[in-house]
Amino acid sequence: MAPCRNCFCCQCCCREEEPRTPEELVRTAGLWGLNAGPELLRFLFPDGRSLDYDRCINEPYVEVLDGLDNKVRKAEQGKTCPLCLPQVGLFVDFFVHLFTKIKFSPAAIERCTDKGCLSLSLLELLTFNLVFVFIASVLVLIEPVASGSGIPEIKSYLNGVKIPGIVRLRTFLCKAGGVLFSVAGGLFVGKEGPMIHSGAIVGAGLPQFQSITFKRIKFDFPYFRSDRDKRDFVSAGAAAGVAAAFGAPIGGTLFSLEEGSSFWNQALTWKVLFCSMSATFTLNFFRSGINFNKWGSFQLPGLLNFGEFKCSDGDKRCHLWTAVDLGFFVLMGVVGGLLGALFNCMNKCLAKYRMRHIHPKARVLESLLVAMVTTVVIFSASVLLGECRGDDINSTIRQFFCSNQTYNDMATLFFNPQEAAIHQLFHQDGTFSPATLSIFFLLYFLLACWTYGVSVPSGLFVPSLLCGAAFGRLVANILKVKLGLQIYSGTFALIGAAAFLGGVVRMTISLTVILIESTNEITYGLPIMITLMVAKWTGDFFNKGIYDIHIQLKGVPLLEWETEVEMDKLTASDIMEPNLTFVYPHTRVQSLVSILRTTVYHAFPVVTENRQNEQDFMKGNILISNNIRFKKTNIVSRAAEQRRRCQSMKSYPSSELRNICDEQNAAGAEPAEEGEDLLQQMLERR
Amino acid sequence: MAPCRNCFCCQCCCREEEPRTPEELVRTAGLWGLNAGPELLRFLFPDGRSLDYDRCINEPYVEVLDGLDNKVRKAEQGKTCPLCLPQVGLFVDFFVHLFTKIKFSPAAIERCTDKGCLSLSLLELLTFNLVFVFIASVLVLIEPVASGSGIPEIKSYLNGVKIPGIVRLRTFLCKAGGVLFSVAGGLFVGKEGPMIHSGAIVGAGLPQFQSITFKRIKFDFPYFRSDRDKRDFVSAGAAAGVAAAFGAPIGGTLFSLEEGSSFWNQALTWKVLFCSMSATFTLNFFRSGINFNKWGSFQLPGLLNFGEFKCSDGDKRCHLWTAVDLGFFVLMGVVGGLLGALFNCMNKCLAKYRMRHIHPKARVLESLLVAMVTTVVIFSASVLLGECRGDDINSTIRQFFCSNQTYNDMATLFFNPQEAAIHQLFHQDGTFSPATLSIFFLLYFLLACWTYGVSVPSGLFVPSLLCGAAFGRLVANILKVKLGLQIYSGTFALIGAAAFLGGVVRMTISLTVILIESTNEITYGLPIMITLMVAKWTGDFFNKGIYDIHIQLKGVPLLEWETEVEMDKLTASDIMEPNLTFVYPHTRVQSLVSILRTTVYHAFPVVTENRQNEQDFMKGNILISNNIRFKKTNIVSRAAEQRRRCQSMKSYPSSELRNICDEQNAAGAEPAEEGEDLLQQMLERR
Repeated sequence: MAPCRNCFCCQCCCREEEPRTPEELVRTAGLWGLNAGPELLRFLFPDGRSLDYDRCINEPYVEVLDGLDNKVRKAEQGKTCPLCLPQVGLFVDFFVHLFTKIKFSPAAIERCTDKGCLSLSLLELLTFNLVFVFIASVLVLIEPVASGSGIPEIKSYLNGVKIPGIVRLRTFLCKAGGVLFSVAGGLFVGKEGPMIHSGAIVGAGLPQFQSITFKRIKFDFPYFRSDRDKRDFVSAGAAAGVAAAFGAPIGGTLFSLEEGSSFWNQALTWKVLFCSMSATFTLNFFRSGINFNKWGSFQLPGLLNFGEFKCSDGDKRCHLWTAVDLGFFVLMGVVGGLLGALFNCMNKCLAKYRMRHIHPKARVLESLLVAMVTTVVIFSASVLLGECRGDDINSTIRQFFCSNQTYNDMATLFFNPQEAAIHQLFHQDGTFSPATLSIFFLLYFLLACWTYGVSVPSGLFVPSLLCGAAFGRLVANILKVKLGLQIYSGTFALIGAAAFLGGVVRMTISLTVILIESTNEITYGLPIMITLMVAKWTGDFFNKGIYDIHIQLKGVPLLEWETEVEMDKLTASDIMEPNLTFVYPHTRVQSLVSILRTTVYHAFPVVTENRQNEQDFMKGNILISNNIRFKKTNIVSRAAEQRRRCQSMKSYPSSELRNICDEQNAAGAEPAEEGEDLLQQMLERR
Repeated sequence: MAPCRNCFCCQCCCREEEPRTPEELVRTAGLWGLNAGPELLRFLFPDGRSLDYDRCINEPYVEVLDGLDNKVRKAEQGKTCPLCLPQVGLFVDFFVHLFTKIKFSPAAIERCTDKGCLSLSLLELLTFNLVFVFIASVLVLIEPVASGSGIPEIKSYLNGVKIPGIVRLRTFLCKAGGVLFSVAGGLFVGKEGPMIHSGAIVGAGLPQFQSITFKRIKFDFPYFRSDRDKRDFVSAGAAAGVAAAFGAPIGGTLFSLEEGSSFWNQALTWKVLFCSMSATFTLNFFRSGINFNKWGSFQLPGLLNFGEFKCSDGDKRCHLWTAVDLGFFVLMGVVGGLLGALFNCMNKCLAKYRMRHIHPKARVLESLLVAMVTTVVIFSASVLLGECRGDDINSTIRQFFCSNQTYNDMATLFFNPQEAAIHQLFHQDGTFSPATLSIFFLLYFLLACWTYGVSVPSGLFVPSLLCGAAFGRLVANILKVKLGLQIYSGTFALIGAAAFLGGVVRMTISLTVILIESTNEITYGLPIMITLMVAKWTGDFFNKGIYDIHIQLKGVPLLEWETEVEMDKLTASDIMEPNLTFVYPHTRVQSLVSILRTTVYHAFPVVTENRQNEQDFMKGNILISNNIRFKKTNIVSRAAEQRRRCQSMKSYPSSELRNICDEQNAAGAEPAEEGEDLLQQMLERR
């Protein structure tokens, strides 16, 4: 495909599947924060590109099973869940609240409004935001995979693709710390996506009771070492992340089911649901205690809360929604799908441009630029474009130049935490003016699109919801004021939010349930579902969901749920590699070494000349005893090979690459004394 | 195993897995309403005992795929859902309401209370109930698989076991009609289980556009004929049944996922969720319109509605539940599990006794006996054991001998539809006396246990909920009055209901979600889940869930989700049949006929002597052309064989057996002209 030089050109937006040349793949390495030649591909997917999720039954494995005592079995069955996650959520939430409170404290800006010291106040805000965003960017520079929302990475991981460093403790620290600063820094990002990634890391790491980043952390707990077990924990962790973020335990479970795609069983569903539920209510418990000093009560839902939708008691004619409204919801779904497709298309072009032309270190500057533009835009929009309105005054409205009993509607949306702004759009009875809503939507749409992909930890849920809610509220305003229909504005804002979010991420099952749970109103089920479905269909007509786009840009070979129609007729022989790398029972050591040196595979078929030979071979376990002999002479082990490869790359200029090599070295290959165990482990795993 | 003569003996209650001899299996045939010798087994599982859920790729199938045009593909992908189901629910609900209203109309009983004509009033009630239950029993006599809740049967079907008549239109009519009369007849049965079965039948039958029961119904719609497609529709239908019954679309989807066990994929989840949601809201739409004359609004949830749990606005100290309460909930879970295990054990013994000693036709008399005892018990309990209390008067309380402003608490529970009684226990502030609750619980427990398994269509959900709610309310009374704790009685009643129901059915995921959705209160998630889990663990210590017990009693070979530990090491050769029935490419017609006559299998391996032969054979499709030649001579076809077998059994005394034969004849084998098509179909399917 010809490189897409014009950023908004048609090529970017159309649906074509791009053939990926090796050069393209290498270029995508840049997205992972790396910047090197073809040799890098091996480091991107070192273990034969995939995780070992299949349980392979063979004689050695049966022996291992025989050797396991009951204790291990119990441990295997009693997989529980990462209960520390809520503390992370609590921590992030607490600090974001604290920082936002300091930043938006009435003293800081509104006092200035009176005295006319506007430029000083802008400067103060700018400094604050730039420092915070700088910290977030630097954290991402330390651990490149901590950038973005992390959902594409988790989706790839659950699909069996190994991405280095994705479930490391260091990634976790950078992600959780980074998102705190990027949200507090006033960027249009959410903390929900990173919460999900953090949950997955906690899930993957906690049951290991050891860490690669901090070698001191090591307990004697030899269970859950296989990729398979780790995967189950990652699913549970991701679900718990959703559950804690939205107060939606069932939605979280379904999220893991929908996005974790390629495996599932009933027992896991139950464990994951239990884990999500525990995460939600633990968070709930601490938030009720800390924020409201009501220890022992569980009345607060998740970090993001849509408030209660209900008609006032007096109004008999009021309905949350009626059959007639459904027609409007379908139309809103179509528009949401179109807007989502446009958002994805623009974001894809930006991501491609970034991949090709911006050096990883220069991305810190880009983040700072985004922060600055965002701050200036929201400040000037609030000051210049807001209207004074005066229906209803509460604690989250902003007055900004307006006389008493009225408020500045633009400032109310921009100068609040995003959650509060969503709450305003859903529940504030006083109308926002159509002009304000349109401008807000447009600015927010463009800035959010630019921001997602900048190298800071950044979620997409809340910005999309806010953007969509503005759109929905705009529709409600038009219907109510211009056409005089009897509708409930909050419902339209909610449906608008669902339509836009659905158009961007293209999730259906889990998103429906998450939104139902966040509103705590089961009667919204049908309209939300229909809207999401229409939005997905409309969007799918143009391009894929944003997560799939980013997965594709990163060159991850993800397997979809649904195969193409043509694949119905394919057989294994149609897609398999005809040139196999294989060994004979008596292959020479020299050849084994050369195979290990030139390939990245995990396992090799052993080929015998006739069946009789094969049976003899299997009976005697010749290869295994041979291997153990090789091990003792310490000539050949994968770890040693990897070490050697790394050494030959040390001359390479990029520091990130060297980091990885060091890490691989440190992680995999303490030379002579560890090598034995590693090979043993490899054998057992096979 | 020695027959369990003493009904409440220890043997019945312990967990042992019973070895099933052929004689035992035959005896279980009685449960299906049949009563015959070993030959019957072939009729119970005529198609080699299983449904064809695997897609088998081979040359003929690939040819079929090539032959399909786009229209069929579209149809295959656009599987939608049985939207007629809500009408069924509506119909049943409407008539149950109507009949109950007539029966419990104040004129009928309360007028008599004044004049002392008690015996007359009892007689009137008895006549009413006996007639209704008689109709229900006769309907079950017509179609024996319509008895019970139908959930074990649907579970078996989704697991791949073919049970004759389970998804027939006749079964549907008997089930939907029967449950109407059994509920209206005052038995302690629910209409939710049969709703689920009805949903499954609608799902299976509707997309076929033809019927075996009514041969006139036949359209030219050749899609969705395979077992695989039918299974997807049955899952969706069952989910829609749950959704309509409880107003719980997500719970319904998870129910299909949890109980449908052995298959699932993401696309199906979405279709099933859409189907459930549509069913819920269609029902909602019509109920809002018919019951409240509010067409176009969707404010009414499912058929069973738990009402709104909330603290009165004035009371600041009120909480729905606190951390301390969780401890009580766990204890209630344990007790619920124990009670559930006792219930299952007693019910199992009763079912065994019934299987061995009661002739199918005599079961009508048993139903009438149950109806009579139930009526007499509730009548005398209300009159003799109720207490007059006077805190709160509303439309569903019953006065029964009590002076103005007070009500008879026992009568309030017994002389109301079960849903209204549950509502009372959840929300009635005026306390019920502990004595009343204990007596009510005991009577209800025993009668419900006797009733489930009697040959009428009967659900178990609502009776279990009511029984458990009484237990929970009893606990709440004790804690509140005796210990003076500040608790919310409704929550305890709900948790009691969950504990008992969980102890009986041992469902976890779906039941949690169904209860959350029915209460429309997400904050109950954690306590409900913990209670259900504890109840399940406690119960599993003693025996299986009630549905699994009934599946086992019926001798269905169900595959569980989790395999036993020993199975980890089994290979295919350990469990496969060593004596295969196979054919050669040139097997003589005589041998084929004899194989078809002596086996019940669906397909036979074709064995060749060497690979070269085999390739020739596959290339020429010799077997297929041979078969077509055979077909033309009309010597050998499965249909003809089946007809012959049936004719040889006509001499057998049991009329049910003859019915089945007739049906098989009518269904399968219109001799010469239909035989061709059948064989053609068989070939295509393979």
